[in-house]
Amino acid sequence: MNVKIEIICIGNELLIGKTLNTNSYWLAKRATALGASVQRITVVSDDVNEIVIVIREALSRKPRFVITTGGLGPTFDDKTLEGIAKGLNRKLEVNDRALKLVRGKYEALLKEGRIEKIELTPSRKKMATFPEGSRPLRNPVGTAPGMLADVKKTSVIALPGVPPEMEAIFDESVAPMLKKEAGKSAFFETSIYIEGIMESSLAPLIDSVMHANPLVYIKSHVYVKYRPQVEGKRSHIELHFSTTSEKPKTANDVLGKAVKQMSELVQENGGNISATEAG
Amino acid sequence: MNVKIEIICIGNELLIGKTLNTNSYWLAKRATALGASVQRITVVSDDVNEIVIVIREALSRKPRFVITTGGLGPTFDDKTLEGIAKGLNRKLEVNDRALKLVRGKYEALLKEGRIEKIELTPSRKKMATFPEGSRPLRNPVGTAPGMLADVKKTSVIALPGVPPEMEAIFDESVAPMLKKEAGKSAFFETSIYIEGIMESSLAPLIDSVMHANPLVYIKSHVYVKYRPQVEGKRSHIELHFSTTSEKPKTANDVLGKAVKQMSELVQENGGNISATEAG
Repeated sequence: MNVKIEIICIGNELLIGKTLNTNSYWLAKRATALGASVQRITVVSDDVNEIVIVIREALSRKPRFVITTGGLGPTFDDKTLEGIAKGLNRKLEVNDRALKLVRGKYEALLKEGRIEKIELTPSRKKMATFPEGSRPLRNPVGTAPGMLADVKKTSVIALPGVPPEMEAIFDESVAPMLKKEAGKSAFFETSIYIEGIMESSLAPLIDSVMHANPLVYIKSHVYVKYRPQVEGKRSHIELHFSTTSEKPKTANDVLGKAVKQMSELVQENGGNISATEAG
Repeated sequence: MNVKIEIICIGNELLIGKTLNTNSYWLAKRATALGASVQRITVVSDDVNEIVIVIREALSRKPRFVITTGGLGPTFDDKTLEGIAKGLNRKLEVNDRALKLVRGKYEALLKEGRIEKIELTPSRKKMATFPEGSRPLRNPVGTAPGMLADVKKTSVIALPGVPPEMEAIFDESVAPMLKKEAGKSAFFETSIYIEGIMESSLAPLIDSVMHANPLVYIKSHVYVKYRPQVEGKRSHIELHFSTTSEKPKTANDVLGKAVKQMSELVQENGGNISATEAG
């Protein structure tokens, strides 16, 4: 099944170029490997109204999952849960199960002697203040739990912005859901690297190989070294072949056939295959 | 003046987690430094219809600039100019100035003996096939020119996806436009790094300092090492202070005052300032 996903990354630090968005990269790679299909990635600020708008826009496209990152912490500009609640027209309320998880983190700190007493201050309660009808996802490495809210046929999942926390919640709670939905469908890929032929000369060759191999998607990527003055100079081109299939053998066969055809065409047209990479 | 920008990154490689989106990071950092304000970053596939939709959505929010990256090359899945043309309800046509730029690149290759004759194949003409009423932006390091189309009060700018080409066109043609629009307005920032206090304990302190310094925006970032089991363990917190101002002295004064207040509050509450960083 084609499991459609949208990723929404929330945080001013991403819009001012302070933080490189490795979270969306990690999530896209992982979701793709699990057989799902990321349709769109949107980055917005920590503004509640912006979050409301992007959540509603994403829901209107009816993906199976909307995964947000960032904005789950204790500070006043952690607005994600408020934005999701408003976007879904739901009230915000202290979620008992989430509060239990948050309290458990402070109990552990108390036990280790790192704090003297457990105070569930407003900032700490905030991490357990969820849209009504949602449930927490355990955070194995940090304090703020993730959140899951089902809205018609879409599951809205909120993950923290701190990468190890985001990754841990995804792996523990989200990956199994994706895998279950995607079934046996998986993503297969392979690449060949080419020199001695320009991208503009490759273009019609790619076209013909894709035409002959409709299950295979081929994309060229130009890698440039030393900032060359013109196309082709000190550059090499990666041709990336990918397909989605339920059967690894079928996937490898169709990819292999397309790679072989492409390699022959490249060589006939004066190019060299400099390297190949298994999928 | 508040110069609003939207960035749209086009390319399946970004949605399957094959390529880390360094282009949006670079553009966001550069645009912010020039005094502009990035409102949203959207990543979509190489699908024409998707591009049409995101272009129209972005225009409906009336930013001063929409900057796209990717999809300007010669291959069939370089759909950006087609998508922008459809999004703007404009015809696609061979742009004479763009074609001259593309031809110039092949003339240079001919002169260097790297090609035997200049053939403006369909794939090469494609790089000069622009929405009507647009103009090319010279590509100092590659073949495909950038594109600029004015639509009411928004300038839509298309840049290549290959980072050195994208950066070169931005620096040569786009940065001067942004600078002119932003005027003297510039972005100022500074950070302090804190240990020995939890983010949830910092939250009300940040709140009070921001309240007392309305021109300053403060955001906490938790950096975690060695995947700690609980908040605070082997983690440190960056407090990032930023402001936009036309006067560097004013900016430094307001940031300095907020940093001082914050540092005092952190120390009163048992935290240590481990480092400071100039803006």
